[in-house]
Amino acid sequence: MARKKHLYNTAQQAEAAFYDALARSDLDALMALWAEDDEIVCIHPGAPRLVGHDAIRQSWAAIFERGNVHIRPVQLHASHSLTSAVHNIVEEVQRTPRDRQDIHIVATNVFIKTAQGWRIVTHHTSIASGQAPAEPLNPALLH
Amino acid sequence: MARKKHLYNTAQQAEAAFYDALARSDLDALMALWAEDDEIVCIHPGAPRLVGHDAIRQSWAAIFERGNVHIRPVQLHASHSLTSAVHNIVEEVQRTPRDRQDIHIVATNVFIKTAQGWRIVTHHTSIASGQAPAEPLNPALLH
Repeated sequence: MARKKHLYNTAQQAEAAFYDALARSDLDALMALWAEDDEIVCIHPGAPRLVGHDAIRQSWAAIFERGNVHIRPVQLHASHSLTSAVHNIVEEVQRTPRDRQDIHIVATNVFIKTAQGWRIVTHHTSIASGQAPAEPLNPALLH
Repeated sequence: MARKKHLYNTAQQAEAAFYDALARSDLDALMALWAEDDEIVCIHPGAPRLVGHDAIRQSWAAIFERGNVHIRPVQLHASHSLTSAVHNIVEEVQRTPRDRQDIHIVATNVFIKTAQGWRIVTHHTSIASGQAPAEPLNPALLH
């Protein structure tokens, strides 16, 4: 497995690869982005938390079976330390006109610098009421 | 202000101080625990995100005005790097018998090691359906 994994030099690259893997429903690519750590956590919108690779993999497999996932991460706010990056984004989900527009999804993605490059340790999403508040675009912060 | 602030040597200490400040409705103590960083993020259950000290302070002030907050952090899962710690917990909220028991709150707390000790940069809570799944107690992980 190891030789198939990309090594990402920044949290931004790892996060871009994360949403790219989602868009392609590529379960192996998605799971390769997580740290090799039993304590990794994934929380889907409105759902209990999942801990560890097996539980997280099963959840994404079930999501991909239901259809394609189209998420665009926007409005990034980030805090960094030498070996970690905390990204908070709004997940812009592609909707049909009949979908509810009175909620939006916010996500905290935490990355840690490991010997295998930057990896994700936490993906925590939640449902917020109302449309996402508009923020001025800052191209330097977006990828 | 600076001389009033405690310096916490671990993320565990900072997190214990966080929930202690909540229990005491001590807004100044609570806000002193956050990193001096414009990009700090706080997401209350079901709410949009708040970015920066002013917005976060106002939100807690409003919560404290409505009454006491009694939260016990349990079932910790943690990922660490040299300069950061990601804690995921279940927030056990003291309820009256009439409260709804069919939801629980999960929280991601991210701490970063700064020159002023360990500080919080993200507090992201969300509502999950059902009661919190029971996990075996691990006293070594609890504080």
